[in-house]
Amino acid sequence: MTKAPAEPHHHVVIVGAGFGGLEATFGLAGAPVQITLVDRRNHHLFQPLLYQVATASLATSEIAWPIRYLLRDRPEVTTLFATVTGVDTQGKLVLLDDGDALPYDTLVLATGARHAYFGHDEWEPFAPGLKTLEDATTLRRRILVAFERAERESDPQRRAALLTFVIVGAGPTGVELAGTIAELAQDTLPPDFRNIDTHKARVVLIEAGPRVLAGFADDLSAYAQRSLESIGVEVVLGQAVTECTADHVVYGGNRLDTTTIIWAAGVRASPAAEWLDAPADRAGRLQVLPDLTIPGHPDIFAVGDTVVIADPDGKPVPGIAPAAKQQGRYVAELIKARLRGGKIAAFRYKHAGSLAQIGKRKAVIDFGRIKLRGTIAWWIWGIAHIYFLIGLRNRLSVALSWLWVYVRDQRAARLITQGSSKASPTSTS
Amino acid sequence: MTKAPAEPHHHVVIVGAGFGGLEATFGLAGAPVQITLVDRRNHHLFQPLLYQVATASLATSEIAWPIRYLLRDRPEVTTLFATVTGVDTQGKLVLLDDGDALPYDTLVLATGARHAYFGHDEWEPFAPGLKTLEDATTLRRRILVAFERAERESDPQRRAALLTFVIVGAGPTGVELAGTIAELAQDTLPPDFRNIDTHKARVVLIEAGPRVLAGFADDLSAYAQRSLESIGVEVVLGQAVTECTADHVVYGGNRLDTTTIIWAAGVRASPAAEWLDAPADRAGRLQVLPDLTIPGHPDIFAVGDTVVIADPDGKPVPGIAPAAKQQGRYVAELIKARLRGGKIAAFRYKHAGSLAQIGKRKAVIDFGRIKLRGTIAWWIWGIAHIYFLIGLRNRLSVALSWLWVYVRDQRAARLITQGSSKASPTSTS
Repeated sequence: MTKAPAEPHHHVVIVGAGFGGLEATFGLAGAPVQITLVDRRNHHLFQPLLYQVATASLATSEIAWPIRYLLRDRPEVTTLFATVTGVDTQGKLVLLDDGDALPYDTLVLATGARHAYFGHDEWEPFAPGLKTLEDATTLRRRILVAFERAERESDPQRRAALLTFVIVGAGPTGVELAGTIAELAQDTLPPDFRNIDTHKARVVLIEAGPRVLAGFADDLSAYAQRSLESIGVEVVLGQAVTECTADHVVYGGNRLDTTTIIWAAGVRASPAAEWLDAPADRAGRLQVLPDLTIPGHPDIFAVGDTVVIADPDGKPVPGIAPAAKQQGRYVAELIKARLRGGKIAAFRYKHAGSLAQIGKRKAVIDFGRIKLRGTIAWWIWGIAHIYFLIGLRNRLSVALSWLWVYVRDQRAARLITQGSSKASPTSTS
Repeated sequence: MTKAPAEPHHHVVIVGAGFGGLEATFGLAGAPVQITLVDRRNHHLFQPLLYQVATASLATSEIAWPIRYLLRDRPEVTTLFATVTGVDTQGKLVLLDDGDALPYDTLVLATGARHAYFGHDEWEPFAPGLKTLEDATTLRRRILVAFERAERESDPQRRAALLTFVIVGAGPTGVELAGTIAELAQDTLPPDFRNIDTHKARVVLIEAGPRVLAGFADDLSAYAQRSLESIGVEVVLGQAVTECTADHVVYGGNRLDTTTIIWAAGVRASPAAEWLDAPADRAGRLQVLPDLTIPGHPDIFAVGDTVVIADPDGKPVPGIAPAAKQQGRYVAELIKARLRGGKIAAFRYKHAGSLAQIGKRKAVIDFGRIKLRGTIAWWIWGIAHIYFLIGLRNRLSVALSWLWVYVRDQRAARLITQGSSKASPTSTS
């Protein structure tokens, strides 16, 4: 059911309540508009900490908020739990899964990205990625079940395969996953098992490029690699993965037996470009004008991971939360300016810095001129992430969870759900 | 893989790490035994608060603990994540799903119960029950999706059906679910929706017997009913449910349109009786001797919800956590006495009291001679439940979650997972 917007109002439809869509909604507070915010999930997700759900450090509810709760004080915003199936740019309608259509005056597409397999979609069941809460609980189940099966396995080769964890892609997510799985095996799990020594688990991080954390300065990459190796992660560089199956991975001609492969190597944009039949790059990302509108559609904006755009230096804007937020904020400002009959300058991305956690007490931060590493970087990383969480309750809760990891190596969310011991570890039911 | 127990040791196999099995394991600390604790889940679950996960008040990890973590300091205990398929009482073997067999000297069956539909198993997809974490997240999804669909529904009749929540069975779980769903609709959700008034949601509690909370004193039952009605729950007594479907329920000849039915009306014991081919009652509960052994099998004990036994007054011991814990503790004591060549008196259940929460600031407590109700009972209820949680971390975390519910009516775990807006509300994928 769709209410017609109240008469004097301009109707803005925002698709996607990730960082970009939510920031656009926040930025439009007080503007003479009606807003409909559509998402196929009922929650906004703090993706930068999703790997901590996958590794049992945080609970799902600590990094997710009901979207409509975040906008409860904004009576002009209607939150719609619905899946968009297309856009009718002629009729200015957003098409929904139930056959309904949502009229818009201005449309903001903030539909994000999914992980991508470079033409090898058949790898997905064996090498799941990490974009949603379900992805995270699936990964958590697979990692924990691997240790459980190893405990029951008497064949040394099969046991070794169960205790080998392969992460493909050494960007921030891959590095953070590898570091945390290594800590899980080294610090959290050893006293709990009787037949296996979880210290012997192998964590192998495979990167096709020449270094880990390619978005960071060279010396921080080198430090990150040394730090990973010091906690037992095997770092493989310059080798592409050519095969993923249920029991092994092949990279650079080498075969490695493993039952757990995690994909952190690439993303593909949402189908927004297909909805609009608009030009996109190889990864499906929409090419937008400097004001973030779609060429030929001045009333349609796109922001965040579903967009490719260059920063002032000509480098592509990275697919990170601050970039999506800046774009969402920019779009809100431009819509408000237009409603006043004005305009604003083109979007300019300001890179605040890059952060990645490597393990307990180790992180790297690249602020451009200032580069930090080690314990001080780790504290800044932790404080920054708690600051960017929404609401006092989640901040307290995450701080409490991290305190337990930090002091006692105890991870509260070591739950195997959606499957008893009978379920296969590759089941995603 | 199964290690033979070290020579001088007696091997105790405990199946099920609920309250009974875990307490038996705790009680055997220091005894000259090897213990294998088998569960098809990797976590112990604090079932008395499961309804709070189903109603978005608590996160899954707040009421569940990895079993092997709870026993990390007990080197003689091996935790096995496995599903038991049978018992070979001749060979003294527990049969596992992977074809392995686990030899035992003493066997303790603590395998619990599932909800039961009195011969109407076809109702299960439409009226799910509440026994596992997955049951709770499934119920949570269905309750939250019903409100989301109502928000999008323009047909008044379908909208009313989406906003009607039926709970079958008015024992503690049914009463607690009804009260919490009513509060969700009355206090938590109203500011978040635009097209529906969640105050108008109907919560209908249907009980075949003559009163709610039949296990409590009459005046506490009457108080509980008044309290439920004061927060908007419609209480229907003396009427049995005769049909459950995807869009309606029939009770006492009345048809009520609803898309959400929750089953809290009955349980059936695990198949332990079938494994042993031993006598059981109509609900599948094993009939045990006064020392909790199976007739003809002095080396096999059974405890908790999978057992039917009378208390000293001849009344059946209730299927609650304290009863299972007392039985688990008794079995541990008897095993230790036997190993010393001694014996102990028959099991005697001591009923400490019955507690049920009705809503914020309302609870009933029946200690036998002392009966409490209202705010004071609610505080005792809350403190008792936090006390019985395991570990400081979960106590702090639950206290924090309850503080937010209490002060701000905010429930942190309002997450629809395992399904986007496209998934049908009856999907349990």
